[in-house]
Amino acid sequence: MANVIDVADPGDSRLDDFRDLNSVDRRPDLPTGKGLVIAEGVLVVQRMLASRFTPRAFLGTDRRLAELGADLDGVDAPFYRASAEVMADVVGFHLNRGVLASASRAAELTVAQVLDGVRTVAVLEGVNDHENLGSVFRNAAGLGVGAVVFGSGCADPLYRRAVRVSMGHALLVPFARAQNWPRDLELLRNKNFRILAMTPDPAAPSLAEAMTGLAGQPVAVLVGAEGPGLQEHTMRSSDMRVRIPMSRGTDSLNVATAAALAFYERDRDREI
Amino acid sequence: MANVIDVADPGDSRLDDFRDLNSVDRRPDLPTGKGLVIAEGVLVVQRMLASRFTPRAFLGTDRRLAELGADLDGVDAPFYRASAEVMADVVGFHLNRGVLASASRAAELTVAQVLDGVRTVAVLEGVNDHENLGSVFRNAAGLGVGAVVFGSGCADPLYRRAVRVSMGHALLVPFARAQNWPRDLELLRNKNFRILAMTPDPAAPSLAEAMTGLAGQPVAVLVGAEGPGLQEHTMRSSDMRVRIPMSRGTDSLNVATAAALAFYERDRDREI
Repeated sequence: MANVIDVADPGDSRLDDFRDLNSVDRRPDLPTGKGLVIAEGVLVVQRMLASRFTPRAFLGTDRRLAELGADLDGVDAPFYRASAEVMADVVGFHLNRGVLASASRAAELTVAQVLDGVRTVAVLEGVNDHENLGSVFRNAAGLGVGAVVFGSGCADPLYRRAVRVSMGHALLVPFARAQNWPRDLELLRNKNFRILAMTPDPAAPSLAEAMTGLAGQPVAVLVGAEGPGLQEHTMRSSDMRVRIPMSRGTDSLNVATAAALAFYERDRDREI
Repeated sequence: MANVIDVADPGDSRLDDFRDLNSVDRRPDLPTGKGLVIAEGVLVVQRMLASRFTPRAFLGTDRRLAELGADLDGVDAPFYRASAEVMADVVGFHLNRGVLASASRAAELTVAQVLDGVRTVAVLEGVNDHENLGSVFRNAAGLGVGAVVFGSGCADPLYRRAVRVSMGHALLVPFARAQNWPRDLELLRNKNFRILAMTPDPAAPSLAEAMTGLAGQPVAVLVGAEGPGLQEHTMRSSDMRVRIPMSRGTDSLNVATAAALAFYERDRDREI
């Protein structure tokens, strides 16, 4: 049974984790990465409960409390029950998902930690858009990718919008930031990962060609930002360049979509 | 050489195609589908110029006019040259893409028209989100899909946001609306299309299994909305159900991403 506390005053300081979420100066999930992690909606709150991010408070309507039900058994953090109107006053906009949870940032994992036991890892460089980053996590979770490693220039995966677009998978798929980029690709190579760098270059082997024969070997899919793509010295640090077979005359795909195609090709012919 | 007309007064009625684009009651690209088609940014304006949607006016800065350059040779429609400030006053927000074009809606194409000569067609049901719809067009263009057919419940692909997210491909990839849904799937079957309906059902054959042996046959990829998926009677009107091999315990992918995986599988092992 949850620890339910009814709140009718939007000014109640116990709700401060959730206050003014859209206000740049006050929202607790600042894009600079110092703030709290916020989960929105029943599904994402459930994923937070299953993650290494332990909720410290919930704010939600009675209806969402009922939907969470047994998921809150044994959870100590308070569930502040409020009307939709009080919630809107607190967060600063109408929130149709009806429930929020806050958590402190968990300790950062190291690259070595997240690679442990992983067959496929996504490695990102310059993915500085929160929606794209969230989509990469959603695609990684759905398509058998065990971890995400960030090179330089990536946005914060724990930013509220990234968590929401990821459907909560940013909380579940382990990630780590490379300390030395792109030098840390050596950490992957030492663990026998084959590092495939995605490129629009038509001279590169196709995904299907590049993945052939790699079923038994760990693979890292290295993806750069839409537009500029991977930096040249990052490209040189990879083991092989790969391209998606594209229609003539088109430009690149969205970065999360391109990554999804690589994840898919990695395991297309078997159950994962 | 473009037909350039300098405009300094934001109230000039010649700019009315571009006025208050974000205002629900005034924007010319109403989601109900009655309005003008708007292209934003140099790349999308170039694609409009290459499409069946003939621009009737342009509004842009001198810098974007220069970038368009020879693309405007022989184009009769006026290019209203204005400062970024005047543009912002007209459209109602700052537009960092710096150039807009308007076009009347071209005559709708029929399903039979868009299927002509096409090897792969995307067929959508219930895709009512403009961003997802735009992404489907971008993915279709990049991954060798020749046309898009709309069943029931789909948003307008010519809505401004859909055109923008599609990178202008909503103007270039031919589309048609089924008049009788799902009965019009017969039009595809009569043209020898094999109709593959995407489903999360783990009992369905995988994309890789389903596409085997279809290289010489036209294929229709039938995709439903995220969440509800395809309606049951639509599913029954297909030739085969197919699924994406997903990680255990995950829900569905984004609809445009799921479609991209099917488009990719269709032509993964060859140049397209």
